[in-house]
Amino acid sequence: MNGLANEQILISRPAIPLTMFELIRRDGLARIGKLDTPHGQLETPALLPVVNPRLVTVPPREMHDTFGFRALITNSYIIRNDAKLNARAIEVGLHEMLDFPGVIMTDSGTFQSHMYGEVEVKNEDIVSFQRDIGTDIGTVLDIFTEPDWSKERTAGAVDVTMERTIEATNLKGNMLLAGVVQGSIYEDLREDCARRLALLNVDVHPIGGVVPLMEQYRFAELVDVIVASKKGLDPSRPVHLFGAGHPMVFALATLLGCDMFDSASYAKFARDDRFMFPEGTASLEDMKGIHCHCPACRSHTYEEIKAMGPADRASLIARHNLWVSMEEVQRIRRAVLEGDLWELVERRCRAHPALLSALRRLGKHKEYLERFEPLSRDNSLLYTGPETLDRPALLRYEKRFFERYKYPDTEVMVAFEESGKPYAKRYQKEMGDVMETCDAHFFVASPIGPVPIELDEMYPIAQSLFPDPPDLETKERIKEQMEHLSHEHPYALGVAWDGQATIDTLEMMCQKEPSFNIDLARVRAVSDYQFGKDAADLLLDGEIEIRKSENTGKVRNVLVNGEHILSMRANDGFFTLRPPGAARLKNGFHAPRLRVTVKDDSVPFNREGKNVFCTFVSDCDPEVRPMDEVMVVDKDDNLVALGRALLTRDEMFSFRTGIAVKVREGIKL
Amino acid sequence: MNGLANEQILISRPAIPLTMFELIRRDGLARIGKLDTPHGQLETPALLPVVNPRLVTVPPREMHDTFGFRALITNSYIIRNDAKLNARAIEVGLHEMLDFPGVIMTDSGTFQSHMYGEVEVKNEDIVSFQRDIGTDIGTVLDIFTEPDWSKERTAGAVDVTMERTIEATNLKGNMLLAGVVQGSIYEDLREDCARRLALLNVDVHPIGGVVPLMEQYRFAELVDVIVASKKGLDPSRPVHLFGAGHPMVFALATLLGCDMFDSASYAKFARDDRFMFPEGTASLEDMKGIHCHCPACRSHTYEEIKAMGPADRASLIARHNLWVSMEEVQRIRRAVLEGDLWELVERRCRAHPALLSALRRLGKHKEYLERFEPLSRDNSLLYTGPETLDRPALLRYEKRFFERYKYPDTEVMVAFEESGKPYAKRYQKEMGDVMETCDAHFFVASPIGPVPIELDEMYPIAQSLFPDPPDLETKERIKEQMEHLSHEHPYALGVAWDGQATIDTLEMMCQKEPSFNIDLARVRAVSDYQFGKDAADLLLDGEIEIRKSENTGKVRNVLVNGEHILSMRANDGFFTLRPPGAARLKNGFHAPRLRVTVKDDSVPFNREGKNVFCTFVSDCDPEVRPMDEVMVVDKDDNLVALGRALLTRDEMFSFRTGIAVKVREGIKL
Repeated sequence: MNGLANEQILISRPAIPLTMFELIRRDGLARIGKLDTPHGQLETPALLPVVNPRLVTVPPREMHDTFGFRALITNSYIIRNDAKLNARAIEVGLHEMLDFPGVIMTDSGTFQSHMYGEVEVKNEDIVSFQRDIGTDIGTVLDIFTEPDWSKERTAGAVDVTMERTIEATNLKGNMLLAGVVQGSIYEDLREDCARRLALLNVDVHPIGGVVPLMEQYRFAELVDVIVASKKGLDPSRPVHLFGAGHPMVFALATLLGCDMFDSASYAKFARDDRFMFPEGTASLEDMKGIHCHCPACRSHTYEEIKAMGPADRASLIARHNLWVSMEEVQRIRRAVLEGDLWELVERRCRAHPALLSALRRLGKHKEYLERFEPLSRDNSLLYTGPETLDRPALLRYEKRFFERYKYPDTEVMVAFEESGKPYAKRYQKEMGDVMETCDAHFFVASPIGPVPIELDEMYPIAQSLFPDPPDLETKERIKEQMEHLSHEHPYALGVAWDGQATIDTLEMMCQKEPSFNIDLARVRAVSDYQFGKDAADLLLDGEIEIRKSENTGKVRNVLVNGEHILSMRANDGFFTLRPPGAARLKNGFHAPRLRVTVKDDSVPFNREGKNVFCTFVSDCDPEVRPMDEVMVVDKDDNLVALGRALLTRDEMFSFRTGIAVKVREGIKL
Repeated sequence: MNGLANEQILISRPAIPLTMFELIRRDGLARIGKLDTPHGQLETPALLPVVNPRLVTVPPREMHDTFGFRALITNSYIIRNDAKLNARAIEVGLHEMLDFPGVIMTDSGTFQSHMYGEVEVKNEDIVSFQRDIGTDIGTVLDIFTEPDWSKERTAGAVDVTMERTIEATNLKGNMLLAGVVQGSIYEDLREDCARRLALLNVDVHPIGGVVPLMEQYRFAELVDVIVASKKGLDPSRPVHLFGAGHPMVFALATLLGCDMFDSASYAKFARDDRFMFPEGTASLEDMKGIHCHCPACRSHTYEEIKAMGPADRASLIARHNLWVSMEEVQRIRRAVLEGDLWELVERRCRAHPALLSALRRLGKHKEYLERFEPLSRDNSLLYTGPETLDRPALLRYEKRFFERYKYPDTEVMVAFEESGKPYAKRYQKEMGDVMETCDAHFFVASPIGPVPIELDEMYPIAQSLFPDPPDLETKERIKEQMEHLSHEHPYALGVAWDGQATIDTLEMMCQKEPSFNIDLARVRAVSDYQFGKDAADLLLDGEIEIRKSENTGKVRNVLVNGEHILSMRANDGFFTLRPPGAARLKNGFHAPRLRVTVKDDSVPFNREGKNVFCTFVSDCDPEVRPMDEVMVVDKDDNLVALGRALLTRDEMFSFRTGIAVKVREGIKL
């Protein structure tokens, strides 16, 4: 642990203004961002094709102008060791040498040390060389930690990587510096390495040493490695998955918060006559036909491609591989925007059982993933298999239901069957044991969890689709939840429907019992679910008036003692807070609950309805999730504005640019 | 049942020479074929875009020359009712009118009757009109059986459809006739309708009345309807899934034996700004970006497309939809050739939970699907979810294992653990109860079934990949099979490994017991599995010599009493028969087992090593599956040739062209 002392010295220095990475859009850990570089802004997620400076398969200019790649990666070690390239790179700079107007990242020779055991260059020299040839993002000469290394050896190597990274921060100049997370398959070492790197003046974080895992299809371990690294890293810096070049893994890696990828595979695979697709690789020999209309393939028949010389064929297939990879990155970008990245990942992970194993591994990390899970999404939640049950959206519902849901105050709705027909009755709690009616039901058993009718319009309940019949895993989950429920809520004993009843049936039945106020029950249940236990009591103390939409019959506005406290959103069934409602919650819940505290110089702007920017946040409820309704307050806890948080607390503190809270309504003095 | 009498009269007539549909390649029910039409051969699977003669979105000429569509479908009812179109169609013919040089199919107005309740045309008139305007494939004015109709009403409508079809066969002239299978959601009515149609002089069989099922996402019922129809139809005629226009369903429908599709959706969806993808539909509004590099989308940004006028935009999106649909058909074609259609279907069915329900519904039909399941495939079997367990390949293994597998003759290999280490011992059967060693194991528990080491190189065992850890459904299946095994084979009581042991471990252990002849056990077990119970006894009676590959150490050739009886294939672990081996099976197994009987005029050619063509088959073992090793015999059961069957018995009798048995070796007199 030699490096630690040095690290601490460096950390105590005043922070140097760092590069800006701005979040444009996010879905969980996945994000669309913009990274400032000396050669302009790079949009992420981004794939950087690897250009071998000695063997150019697709010219960088073509990558930029025709394919639309805005960044590439090349190897500074190869350039430095080649007398001619070295001289030229120093003379005209990397961009002119490669004829590429976009962002250029360079690797340092680390991968060569993995391949050949050793490299003959010092960290100091290769970092300075990268800076001197004008690379935009240069990389530390980190130690490639192999998956078969012992923990001790790995820890030692991580320390060396740390020392070298510190050294590099003092040499980088205007170049962005890539500080690589190492630590092999040891999750604690990865997280620790990431945490130490987060304190350094580094701009981009590649996750390194993962190529062997990908080559050996150890994708489940790759999931562990990415998650461990993400846990330690500074969320405001882009994460690059080093050597991830197969479109098969882009969606999964993006879901876990990787922002950049690089691909040498497009050219390597092409030399072996292998076509890449998001659903896997196909060799020309096996394919027996071309089914691709990418610009490279379209004008050729299968027979023509087979008859080409090896160089022409490799050149065509490399372009195919680039087109397909580019299209997949764009598809993923669209999924982040549309809110169906989980569905895309679950489909992509059917490309190979090893990817399906990786998908299952996400279940191990669902508590962590839930911290970034948005309150709701525009898109429906579509079930694709047992792995869907581990989605953070379902974990969220299950937890909040069991922690926050309360029975309607004065009565219990019981639905039951008699001679095969469903009925509903209402009982006073004071009646005690009403369970003589042994077929009594109150909840609909669903794969999401036990659903009381009051919550049936709320995300993800109304926005989920499951296949019929359910699989064993789903049946088992329903059974467990209902057992748990009957333990937690003895009134609901014997709750599980036999699958015949639907939420519609129940609602219809309740309408036959007009004294049960389903609307009030809904307002109460959603309030507690969204804002926390007892929120409904705080919000609804007084004379309640519920206004409904004339078109849809759904709850729209809630007034208490004549004050408009809540509005219900039609799309996700959650509330937006109105100032009187916020005042009630603020009085009942102590800071920092449901709050984002802003610095004094931000207050006047937010009172005008302007958004809260990250730099002005001084505190935030650690329980806030993306898209949560929050109160913006000043340092004395005065209400300044209402809006929706786009970031978690850690993210608000970490980002130096971008919006923390999208303000809907400023509270003027 | 008015129609029946007429049908029987017609059936008794001498068969008119019918149109030729030739099988080029098949995988289960899925097939690549060629249909002869007046405008050339149509390759299947084929998608026929719908051209509305009054509202052309994409000109037919462009569909042909640019997109490569070789067939389209248009509506004869609309043409007939439009005075101008009618006159022109009669005058210059349909092909010149539409400017389309490929195959033109016409619908008859049935869909209009579904949409508007009634059409004002008689079957006789519309069929004659189609013939007169030169359509290649004309359609009967069948009755669209709606999914909400009673069974009685549906049966009556089917009878009317049958009468009209019979009428049409007498009017069709040189036009191919499409006789539509109706029967709504009633499987027995569908199958019966199909069976009656199979006897008529009809060339193509659309499955009709399914649009409401697809519109309502009732894909599981669609599966039932297709399977029921396929059961009744003549396998030598192409099957058209009427109105299946979404690329989302093409793979599933192909897997179930549909050869043709038609799409009006490409244009309809386009008018609503909806982009089709094999993974579902995306509306322009939701998409927020274009990620497609099809020729239609590539040169436009999202913003440009949004800014277009409605007509231009619809025209662009329609072209996108056609490109994507065309690419999917080509992808499916490749999957049939490569042998990974099941994997593709299982991925595609993750596009929507309703499709996943349909995928699960395949389990209901697995016995039927198994009849067409090839002995082996080039591609590995990849697990994608619990639905994979219902694959016919796994059903095949399970059945044959339990029906055909026998313990090695004189001894029982038992592998067991002692102090956590695996050991293997061999016991004489005569020793009786050897189960004192209570941890005894012999089989590896796998999702495929209990695998004895002798079968571990055989398809699908060596060629399967499953994720780790297994899901509940897989665990349950393994448990059931192992329980079944311990009942069937009391020697194998307590068989299930705890998951630690692998086939390699077991094999290694067996090598430590040199007196257990794993090679002989393998030859015996594969023989019984492939050729039937007791085949090994017939084949191996005498002095056995097993020759192994020097490179791989695997069994290559088997000699008995100095005669070469079997060769083992490296790729799938099955045998090819040599003449002395065939002679032994022929003597032991009575006709028609393992045989294809050919007519006299074929015999001399097959003895020369030429393939057996369908028309020359006079009998075939009904148990023969595609790719099975078969003996070709003459009417007196003399061995004529050896080869692999490409078709089932029914198919051999039905097809009037194409290869029934691919002969490897003729037996000269």
